[in-house]
Amino acid sequence: MTDFTTGLDDLAIETPSWAYGNSGTRFKVFAQRGVPRDPFEKVADAAQVHAFTGAAPTVALHIPWDRVPDYAALADHAVDHGVRLGAINANVFQDDDYMLGSVTNPDPKVRRKAVDHLLECVDIMDLTGSRDLKLWFSDGTNYPGQDDIRARQDRLSEALTEVYARLGDDQRLLLEYKLFEPAFYTTDVPDWGTSFLHCVALGPKAVVCVDTGHHAPGTNIEFIVALLLRAGRLGAFDFNSRFYADDDLMVGAADPFQLFRIMFEVVSGGGLDPATGVAFMLDQCHNIEPKIQGQIRSVMNAQEATAKALLVDAAALKAAQAEGDVLGANAVLMDAYNTDVRPLLAGWRESRGLDGDPIAAYKASGYFEKIVAERVGGTQAGWGA
Amino acid sequence: MTDFTTGLDDLAIETPSWAYGNSGTRFKVFAQRGVPRDPFEKVADAAQVHAFTGAAPTVALHIPWDRVPDYAALADHAVDHGVRLGAINANVFQDDDYMLGSVTNPDPKVRRKAVDHLLECVDIMDLTGSRDLKLWFSDGTNYPGQDDIRARQDRLSEALTEVYARLGDDQRLLLEYKLFEPAFYTTDVPDWGTSFLHCVALGPKAVVCVDTGHHAPGTNIEFIVALLLRAGRLGAFDFNSRFYADDDLMVGAADPFQLFRIMFEVVSGGGLDPATGVAFMLDQCHNIEPKIQGQIRSVMNAQEATAKALLVDAAALKAAQAEGDVLGANAVLMDAYNTDVRPLLAGWRESRGLDGDPIAAYKASGYFEKIVAERVGGTQAGWGA
Amino acid sequence: MTDFTTGLDDLAIETPSWAYGNSGTRFKVFAQRGVPRDPFEKVADAAQVHAFTGAAPTVALHIPWDRVPDYAALADHAVDHGVRLGAINANVFQDDDYMLGSVTNPDPKVRRKAVDHLLECVDIMDLTGSRDLKLWFSDGTNYPGQDDIRARQDRLSEALTEVYARLGDDQRLLLEYKLFEPAFYTTDVPDWGTSFLHCVALGPKAVVCVDTGHHAPGTNIEFIVALLLRAGRLGAFDFNSRFYADDDLMVGAADPFQLFRIMFEVVSGGGLDPATGVAFMLDQCHNIEPKIQGQIRSVMNAQEATAKALLVDAAALKAAQAEGDVLGANAVLMDAYNTDVRPLLAGWRESRGLDGDPIAAYKASGYFEKIVAERVGGTQAGWGA
Amino acid sequence: MTDFTTGLDDLAIETPSWAYGNSGTRFKVFAQRGVPRDPFEKVADAAQVHAFTGAAPTVALHIPWDRVPDYAALADHAVDHGVRLGAINANVFQDDDYMLGSVTNPDPKVRRKAVDHLLECVDIMDLTGSRDLKLWFSDGTNYPGQDDIRARQDRLSEALTEVYARLGDDQRLLLEYKLFEPAFYTTDVPDWGTSFLHCVALGPKAVVCVDTGHHAPGTNIEFIVALLLRAGRLGAFDFNSRFYADDDLMVGAADPFQLFRIMFEVVSGGGLDPATGVAFMLDQCHNIEPKIQGQIRSVMNAQEATAKALLVDAAALKAAQAEGDVLGANAVLMDAYNTDVRPLLAGWRESRGLDGDPIAAYKASGYFEKIVAERVGGTQAGWGA
Repeated sequence: MTDFTTGLDDLAIETPSWAYGNSGTRFKVFAQRGVPRDPFEKVADAAQVHAFTGAAPTVALHIPWDRVPDYAALADHAVDHGVRLGAINANVFQDDDYMLGSVTNPDPKVRRKAVDHLLECVDIMDLTGSRDLKLWFSDGTNYPGQDDIRARQDRLSEALTEVYARLGDDQRLLLEYKLFEPAFYTTDVPDWGTSFLHCVALGPKAVVCVDTGHHAPGTNIEFIVALLLRAGRLGAFDFNSRFYADDDLMVGAADPFQLFRIMFEVVSGGGLDPATGVAFMLDQCHNIEPKIQGQIRSVMNAQEATAKALLVDAAALKAAQAEGDVLGANAVLMDAYNTDVRPLLAGWRESRGLDGDPIAAYKASGYFEKIVAERVGGTQAGWGA
Repeated sequence: MTDFTTGLDDLAIETPSWAYGNSGTRFKVFAQRGVPRDPFEKVADAAQVHAFTGAAPTVALHIPWDRVPDYAALADHAVDHGVRLGAINANVFQDDDYMLGSVTNPDPKVRRKAVDHLLECVDIMDLTGSRDLKLWFSDGTNYPGQDDIRARQDRLSEALTEVYARLGDDQRLLLEYKLFEPAFYTTDVPDWGTSFLHCVALGPKAVVCVDTGHHAPGTNIEFIVALLLRAGRLGAFDFNSRFYADDDLMVGAADPFQLFRIMFEVVSGGGLDPATGVAFMLDQCHNIEPKIQGQIRSVMNAQEATAKALLVDAAALKAAQAEGDVLGANAVLMDAYNTDVRPLLAGWRESRGLDGDPIAAYKASGYFEKIVAERVGGTQAGWGA
Repeated sequence: MTDFTTGLDDLAIETPSWAYGNSGTRFKVFAQRGVPRDPFEKVADAAQVHAFTGAAPTVALHIPWDRVPDYAALADHAVDHGVRLGAINANVFQDDDYMLGSVTNPDPKVRRKAVDHLLECVDIMDLTGSRDLKLWFSDGTNYPGQDDIRARQDRLSEALTEVYARLGDDQRLLLEYKLFEPAFYTTDVPDWGTSFLHCVALGPKAVVCVDTGHHAPGTNIEFIVALLLRAGRLGAFDFNSRFYADDDLMVGAADPFQLFRIMFEVVSGGGLDPATGVAFMLDQCHNIEPKIQGQIRSVMNAQEATAKALLVDAAALKAAQAEGDVLGANAVLMDAYNTDVRPLLAGWRESRGLDGDPIAAYKASGYFEKIVAERVGGTQAGWGA
Repeated sequence: MTDFTTGLDDLAIETPSWAYGNSGTRFKVFAQRGVPRDPFEKVADAAQVHAFTGAAPTVALHIPWDRVPDYAALADHAVDHGVRLGAINANVFQDDDYMLGSVTNPDPKVRRKAVDHLLECVDIMDLTGSRDLKLWFSDGTNYPGQDDIRARQDRLSEALTEVYARLGDDQRLLLEYKLFEPAFYTTDVPDWGTSFLHCVALGPKAVVCVDTGHHAPGTNIEFIVALLLRAGRLGAFDFNSRFYADDDLMVGAADPFQLFRIMFEVVSGGGLDPATGVAFMLDQCHNIEPKIQGQIRSVMNAQEATAKALLVDAAALKAAQAEGDVLGANAVLMDAYNTDVRPLLAGWRESRGLDGDPIAAYKASGYFEKIVAERVGGTQAGWGA
C-alpha cells in the first residue's frame, strides 16, 4: 500500500475545459454569469482549481471546442497560470454528418471525415505535448435493425487501427465506453468488455477509460477497476457521479462510499503510482451550481475518498480476509471510511502552502466577482462551442 | 370486452405539435429537411398523420412553443386540414428563472410566474376548446440537501390548488410523473403514487397522465394502468418507448409486448370507452428518423397492440385464471399477441376509405417532397421554439 | 429538529426473531453454529443485541415460525431477558396452498384460510400486547395473463378490510410493499403508491411499511419517506441494504449515505418522536456472517446514520436553501455526514452504563461460545421453521 | 442467411435435468405431483419434450444432483427414450464448505475440493461422451472488504487453468457469467467481459455461456451475442426470461421481441450452423407451472423466435441499412417479427411426423397422469437433490 502523504501527492486530477462552460440537459441549458468565452479563459478558470487545491495541475481540451490557431500559445498561457494542457478529447458527434454515427457510420465518406478528425487530434497532441487521446464515440443505433451490429464493430476496428498506427511512442489511446445516450438501442462501445476487446486487439498503447457514470444500474465499478488494473489496461477515469443515468454530477456527491471503494481498488492495485499511467480526470456538468466551485468541490471529494482509501489497514484487512472473518474484514474497511479525513487533508494543504479550506479561500479571493465583471459581451462557451 | 371494430373506432391518438419539429439529446439536435417553422405548419403535418391513419384526429399544443396571436385562427386552420386542437401542454422549464424549479422554486416570485403561466394555459384552453391541461414539471433537485423535499411538496400542492380552481366544468388537469431528468437527485413528481396523491387531494377533475417512458427499470406499467383505471384516476397516456431511460422512441418499437399488455389492461378495464375519458397521446422525439413517418408508424404500432388486445378471448382467459391454469391462461393471452393483425387493420382502414398501408401511401403522396421544397428560410421549429 | 441526545434516546430498533435463525438464497442455506432451536432461544439472542447496544428493546415475531403454546410465557421470558415482544409478522407464503397467492388467490377457500391466519395473528397480538400487525404478501403472478390484476386488487381489498375491522383501538396494520420476488411478473403490492392507496381506503390505523430493499433500481427512498411522513402514513421501516435486489444485507452496509439521507428525512420530519408512531425494524438475512454480531453491527449502523442526521445544522441548511445556494446547502448536509460520530456514540453508550464498543464487548462476553456449546441437538431455526 | 427449413432443422435445444424437479425461491419450494425421483425419471421426462417437439434431442446433467453409479447405463437409458446426454453442469455451491466461495475461496483446502469436483466432472464427460463442461460459479462476496477482488481472480484463473488442461481434444469449457445472486456485493464472474477475458487466457476450447437472465437492467444482450460470435467465443446459451433479476421464467415469456433479436443475431452471424458449436440450452425454474409442459412451451417459444429471425429479408435489410433508411430498415425487421409463424412451424412438425400442436398432443398423451400415478413414494428431485 502507498504511504498516505505520497498517495495524496501522487493524486493529480485533470479538470476538463468544458466544465467551465455552460451545460445542461436536452430540456434547457441555463446560462451562468462569468462563463468563459474562449479556451484561454477556460484555462484561466482551471488554473484557479489548481491554485486552491494543489491537486489539479492539468486541463483537458476538447477538439473542436478548444481549437485555437496557436496551440503553443495556449500551452504557454497554461504554464503562465500554473497548469499544463492535458488529454485531447476528440469530438465526432456534433456535425450533422454524424447523425447515424461517425467511425461506424454506414457511409464511408462520413467515416473518412471522422477518422481524419481523430488524426488531426493526434497532430494537436504533438503540438501540446499531450500524452492521451481520449475517444468517446456516441455511435450507435436507436432502432432494432437500423444497422448491422457486427459491421459497425468492423468499421470501428478499422478506424481505431488507423488512429493507433498514428500514435507516437509516448502517446496513448484511451477508449471510453458508455451504456447509452445519445444512442438508445445499441451503442457501439457500451461496456468495459467491448473497450477491452478492442484495446487488446490494438496493442499496449490502447487502454480503457472508465467513466463512473456510464454503467448499467447495479454494475460494480470497483470490480471493473480491479480487473482492468490486473490486466494492465486501466488507462484513465472520467470521474462524476450519478443517481440514475449519466447524470454528470460532482464526483462523490451521489455515492461517496462507492467512490471510496473505487479509490481503494486503485490504491491497493498500485494505480496511484504514476508509473502505472492511470489518469484521473473529471468529466462533469455543473448545470445549476457555480462551475469553478463545483470543480473545487469535486477535487476535494476525490481527495477525501483517496485519503480514506490510504488509511485502510492493509495488514489487518488481509488477515481478516484470510480467516474468512466477514464482519471483521468489512469492519477494517469501514473503519477507514468512517474516519473524518478533513483535518488530515487541511494539514496536507497547509504543508504545501495552501489554505486548509479551498472553497472558503476561493470565495474570499474575489475571482468570481472579477470574471463576472470582466466577461461581458462575446459568446459564452458551452456544449458545442 | 369491447367489440373489435368498435374498439379500433374508439382508439383516437393525439399527436403532439412538437414531434414535427427538430429534437435531439443534450449532445446534438440534428436538423431535418422540411421541418415546420410555425404552429400552422405543425398542424398541417399532424393532419397528414390523420389523413393516412384515420386514427389521429387531434393535435396537442405546447405553450409557449405554439403561442399564436389568434387561437381561433389556429383552430380553424386545424379543422380546414381535417383535425382538431387537443390538449394544452404547459411549459415551465425553459426560462432561466426556472433553474431551481418552477412551482416548487424556493423563490416565491418564480413560483408566481410559473403559476401565472399555468393559468394562461387555461385561458388558451377556453379559446381552443381544449379539455385537458397537461402538466409536467421538470422541478426537482440535483444534490442532497439542495432543497427541502416536503416544502417543495407544499409549494406544489399550493400551485396545483390554484390552477385546479381555475378549471372550467368540462376541463381537466392531467398530472404527469417522471422518475428523473432533467433533475438528477429528487424529482417533485417522480412516480404515479405522488401524482395520484395530489390528484385525490385536488378533486375529480385531476387525473394521472402515464408516460410510458418515465419509470424506473423493471416497473410494471400495465399494473399501474390497471390500478389507476380501478381507482378512476387514469387520465391519459403519453406514449413512447424506451430501452434505457426516457428515450422517447416510437411507441411499440422497444417492447411491443409491453405495449400489448398495457392496451390489454386498457381494453379489459373499459378504458377504450370514450366515457372513461382516457386520452391516448404520443410524446416522442424523432431525432434521427423522418418525423411524419415516425408518427404514422407510432399510430400504427398503437393500433396493432390494441387490435391484439381486442382479440384476447376474454371468456377463455377468465376460465383458465379461475382454474389456476397458469400455462393455459398465459397461452390465451399469447395466442392473441402472436396473431398477425396487419391484414385485419388493413381491412379496417379500407372500410373507412383509407389505403391499407399508410406508410406506403404517405410516401407516394409527395407530401414530404413538397414541404422540403416549400419550407426554405425561416427558423425551423424545435425544442424551445 | 430533535436534540442530539433525545434523538438517540428515541431511536428504538426492533430486531426480528428470524434474523437469529439460518437463512440463505434459493441456492443454499448455510447452517451456522449456535443457532436457536425455538422462539425462546431467539428471544434470548435478541436480548443480547439490546444488552450491548441499549437500542434494541423489542423483538418481532413471525407466525407460524414463532408459534408457542403460551404467548404470555414467551412475553415473560422476554422481560426476564430485558426486552419485550414487538410486532407480529404474518406469514401466508409457505403453505403449498399459497402457490398462486394467499389473500389474492383465485380460489376462495385459499383466501379464507389466509384471512383466518391474519385474524389469528391479531388474536396473538392481544396476548402479546403487540401494537403492530405487519403484512407482507408474496402474492403475485409469474406470467402475463396468469390472473386478473384488478380482480386481485379487489380480493386484496376485501381481505384487508376484514382484518382492519378486527383491530383493537391501539392496534395498527402495517402494509409492506415489494417490487418483486417471489413473484416475477406482477406483485399485488409492488410500490408505496399501492400500499398508500389501500391504507387510505382502510382508515387511520393502516399505515405503510417501507422496506429499504424493496424498490426498483434508482428509486429515491428518502423522497418516499418524506411524502409518507407529510401524509401521516409512514408506519414503519424494515431496514436492510442492497446492491442489486432484495439482498437483505446489513442496513448501512451497501450505501451508508442513503441511510443517512433517509434518517435525515425522518429526523427533520419529526419521525423520531415516538408520538408519530414510526417503528424502526431490522429485516435482514445474515447468510454468511454471524447473526448476533450482524444484528449488533446493523443497530450501530442505524445509530451512526441517525447521529449524523441529528448533527445537520438545520438553520444553516434552511438559509442556504432559501437563497438557492446549491453548493452551500449540499455542504451543510455533507458536513454532518462527513463527521466521525463514533466517539459521540461511544459517549452516549457509556453514559448509559454500556461499553463504548458493543462488538468488542459482545465478543468478550463469551455468549457465542456458550450457545455453540449448549445448542446441540434439536432442529435449528431457519426460514420456514 | 440460413434457409428457413435448414435453420429450424439445425436448432437443437438441450433441456436441463433439473427443470423436471421441484424448484422455487428462497421463500418456498412448492412441490408438484409426478416429479421425478432420480436421474432416470428426469431423462424420461426430457424425452417427452423431444418426442413432441422434435427439437430437444439432448438433456443436460448436473453433478452431483445427477450422480449415478453407472453413467453408461444412464446414457443407454436416454438412447432408449430417444434422446442423448448433453452437457455436464458442475455444482460447487451447495456444500457448507462453499459458504465463502469454491474455486475462489480464501481457504486453499476448499479450493482444492472444488477443483477436484470439476475434474471429476470431466471424468464423467469421458463416460457420457459429453462435449461441454458448463461452469457457473456462485462465488463472490456480500460485503465490501470481505475478500480481495484481484486475489479471487488469481485463484479463479488458477483453477480454470488446471481444469482446462484436463479437457480432451473434443471437449470444451463453457464459462457462464452472472451479475449477482447468490453473492450480493461482488461476483467473481459477473459479466461477459470477465468471462471473455478468462476464456482468451485459457485457449480456444474455452468459450462463453450467455444466460439470458444474468445481466444488469438495460443490458443489450443481442449486442453481446453479436460480439462474441464475431470473436469466435460464443459457446452456448442458457435460455430463460426475466422481468426483474434472474427470474428463470420460460424463455420468450417476458420479452419475446428480445428473444427474436437475439436469434436474429445468431442467425445472421451463422450461429445456427452446427459447425460454429453454439449450444442452445434451457435453464429455467418452473416454480408454479407444470414442468414438462413448461419445457415444451419454452422449446416452442425458441422455435418461434428462430423462425421469425429466419424470415428476415436479409437483402432488403442490408439495402436499407446502407442507405441510412432508419425506418425502412426497422420495418424489414419488424415485418418478420410481426408474422404469425405458428402455421409454418406446425407444417414443419407435421413434415417430420409430429403433431402440429405439441402442447395439445402432450396433454392428450396421458403421460402426466401416468407419472402422477406411478411416482408415489421416494424423494422428489429438486434443487440440491
